[in-house]
Amino acid sequence: MIDTKKIYIALLHYPVYNKQGEVIASAITNLDLHDLARLCATYGLGGYYVVQPLELQRKLAEKLLWHWREGPGSGYNWTRKEAFERVKVVADLEMVKERVKEKSKSPAKLVATSAKKLGRQISYKQMKNLMDADRGQSWLIIFGTGWGLTREFLEKEVDYVLEPIRGRDEYNHLSVRTAVGIILDRLLGVDREAD
Amino acid sequence: MIDTKKIYIALLHYPVYNKQGEVIASAITNLDLHDLARLCATYGLGGYYVVQPLELQRKLAEKLLWHWREGPGSGYNWTRKEAFERVKVVADLEMVKERVKEKSKSPAKLVATSAKKLGRQISYKQMKNLMDADRGQSWLIIFGTGWGLTREFLEKEVDYVLEPIRGRDEYNHLSVRTAVGIILDRLLGVDREAD
Repeated sequence: MIDTKKIYIALLHYPVYNKQGEVIASAITNLDLHDLARLCATYGLGGYYVVQPLELQRKLAEKLLWHWREGPGSGYNWTRKEAFERVKVVADLEMVKERVKEKSKSPAKLVATSAKKLGRQISYKQMKNLMDADRGQSWLIIFGTGWGLTREFLEKEVDYVLEPIRGRDEYNHLSVRTAVGIILDRLLGVDREAD
Repeated sequence: MIDTKKIYIALLHYPVYNKQGEVIASAITNLDLHDLARLCATYGLGGYYVVQPLELQRKLAEKLLWHWREGPGSGYNWTRKEAFERVKVVADLEMVKERVKEKSKSPAKLVATSAKKLGRQISYKQMKNLMDADRGQSWLIIFGTGWGLTREFLEKEVDYVLEPIRGRDEYNHLSVRTAVGIILDRLLGVDREAD
């Protein structure tokens, strides 16, 4: 079984596309913090990094995390407090790579996700096999916000890009919250195939 | 392959528990409408019913749906417009059962979900096999909001209750948005095991 403590996730607000296909820094969505933190706690991951270059946005997110971790909310809902213990807000991906390297004692392999069909993508089964074959390796799975991670980022900055989640119809516009859930469960879910 | 047009989902805001274990009608969360509608469109389901007994809450949800389907938002984002075509807001579960019966020409089997371990629950693989074995049958998968569907509802109102999603640690407090994604993908995902 894969040691999920060696798996980290990062939610990137830059570099992503907006609806017009321009490269932007997107705003943080409150429920992306909550939902991904809960997933991270449920699947026992090593950490969840929110990557946001805009300082004002980072401060806002820190305030929200503080509210549930140490502030008035901490006595109100322990499931939020516990989930938010694993969340860190940082300015760029380099900082995530450094922190993961410190924690894991070696650099993580980078796996990006995309809803688009690209030239070179890896299936969930292949990725699972890679993770299973090298138990000492740490992995950073990267998700984009807005209209997705830029093509340039996907081509140059990561080791692997996972296949998009195919549905039954042509439509495949999932929210990042549900997409992260499905992807983590495909790679790490323990009871998917149990009778 | 299961015909996903025969699969319907319902999100219940009553009868559910609040944090104190009291039975309440919970408020609608905006992103539950968006995220589940997108899942419904991606997996090609027959429909998504939002069940809410409070009239003011239903009106609010209708207004939001109108905005993206016919109002100012309809020209702004086609992915929301298309997803929201499949969403209906109704007052109680009986109305959902009637509508699904009309659409499918026979009553649906009811499958509830719960994050709690109960006496009699069915695995994802068993449920998948049941769905696969009777292709003419329609299925209504029911999700709760707040702190989950009441024990009485789970014991008396449905044909099956699915196993909770187990993680690696004790913690299993997922948001309903990510839980619905994971459960639908486990039952209906086509490329989970592909190489």
